[in-house]
Amino acid sequence: MTFAEILELHPKPWRVDRSTILRCIQECIDCLASCTACADACLSEEDLPSLVRCIRLDLDCADVCASTERVLIRQTEPNTRLVWTTVEACAAACGACAEECERHAAHHEHCRLCAEVCRRCKAACEALLMALPPFQA
Amino acid sequence: MTFAEILELHPKPWRVDRSTILRCIQECIDCLASCTACADACLSEEDLPSLVRCIRLDLDCADVCASTERVLIRQTEPNTRLVWTTVEACAAACGACAEECERHAAHHEHCRLCAEVCRRCKAACEALLMALPPFQA
Amino acid sequence: MTFAEILELHPKPWRVDRSTILRCIQECIDCLASCTACADACLSEEDLPSLVRCIRLDLDCADVCASTERVLIRQTEPNTRLVWTTVEACAAACGACAEECERHAAHHEHCRLCAEVCRRCKAACEALLMALPPFQA
Amino acid sequence: MTFAEILELHPKPWRVDRSTILRCIQECIDCLASCTACADACLSEEDLPSLVRCIRLDLDCADVCASTERVLIRQTEPNTRLVWTTVEACAAACGACAEECERHAAHHEHCRLCAEVCRRCKAACEALLMALPPFQA
Repeated sequence: MTFAEILELHPKPWRVDRSTILRCIQECIDCLASCTACADACLSEEDLPSLVRCIRLDLDCADVCASTERVLIRQTEPNTRLVWTTVEACAAACGACAEECERHAAHHEHCRLCAEVCRRCKAACEALLMALPPFQA
Repeated sequence: MTFAEILELHPKPWRVDRSTILRCIQECIDCLASCTACADACLSEEDLPSLVRCIRLDLDCADVCASTERVLIRQTEPNTRLVWTTVEACAAACGACAEECERHAAHHEHCRLCAEVCRRCKAACEALLMALPPFQA
Repeated sequence: MTFAEILELHPKPWRVDRSTILRCIQECIDCLASCTACADACLSEEDLPSLVRCIRLDLDCADVCASTERVLIRQTEPNTRLVWTTVEACAAACGACAEECERHAAHHEHCRLCAEVCRRCKAACEALLMALPPFQA
Repeated sequence: MTFAEILELHPKPWRVDRSTILRCIQECIDCLASCTACADACLSEEDLPSLVRCIRLDLDCADVCASTERVLIRQTEPNTRLVWTTVEACAAACGACAEECERHAAHHEHCRLCAEVCRRCKAACEALLMALPPFQA
């Protein structure tokens, strides 16, 4: 995608490892779209009543990924504590959504795939948390 | 606003104190709109170059408030860890944005007002964190 | 809400009637939150399968109101065609969601209230469309 | 990205040509991220005052692409008028943003790239508008 090329051109880039940020942004993008698609597929399933918790967590995870994506794309004078807690929330959202989607993975391929994306996004968030500079709690 | 009446009608409400959640949602709503308005007012100021960090944090704070608002409105089978980390990120975003806006409060009334909203939203997030049930870290 | 005070302080305000814009922003804010709350209340209802279309349109309407809110808050050098089509999409989203919510209003008070908010938001969008300056189609 | 595989698995897909919708979603995703990145890169440029309109339209375009992405991902019982006006607003946002970014393309490579993404997204929106079923205006 072109946005990654634009990120590379930032006149005053953040000194955090760019490839780790980029990987996390890309996973957030896929996770936001995948959770939105999974929630909607669940809405059309015959066993809809058993998928209520899955839909709810899909919607939460999509929303948290959406804000995390935007915060991470911005390289201009970031606040480390803000970035850190945002990425931590994203990891928690992806973890909760993955766990629920996995419970439906045997019956719904879209839940299985969505769980995979959530797991990858959670891992990318955790890798970024390790790469972020320290800050005062 | 009508949304608060709709929240009251939820068939299976979360057992967390409803007025504390509602207060936090309302502050997120005002903070999202206020930060969006402050960033835009900054863009039209003559001393724009001194407001770069303020605009960046306004945009971050608006995005984090937007996802927090949606997560908190949902009462159906919430995941406590997801809610907790989301609200913590929101408190951090509001704190960072308030601090920066306060630096411009003497010169720009919109920054002074925006800092006030951010402080109120941060306090509402912290009050909600105290009211949330415990979860395994 | 404080954001309205911040809007009043814009250094280079758009020449469109401010109260008409403000009214539309406020309805978008309530409609976004109300549709999010109604979708979530529907998810917890026993007749969930009959509410699928209502949830889908609630989610669409919330998303379109969210982007319309942000576009309208910004007063700095707006593009009239962009604003016009955005507000028109918002009116269409509110109209579609209101119509579906009204079908469930007799059984679900949250749908009845949500339909009311959508109708008010649609009317505010239409009033704003009348107030916007002309542009080349 | 995995979300495209999830879209393919929808139990009750919309009868609109799936590849045209998918193409439009993918362009919205790149355009949302690219406009967010371009706005932020502009914020860090030395000629920031000349980029005010570019930042404003980048932010608008990102927001409209974000809601369009979500509306298009949902395949469950769509409202054609809602989809149509949303995609039309997205085409208008991309067109306005592309035009402004092109004015800075000679000086800022990120603006040149962002204009390209906006043009592609506009074209994908227009192709989708041609493929949508008719509705009563």
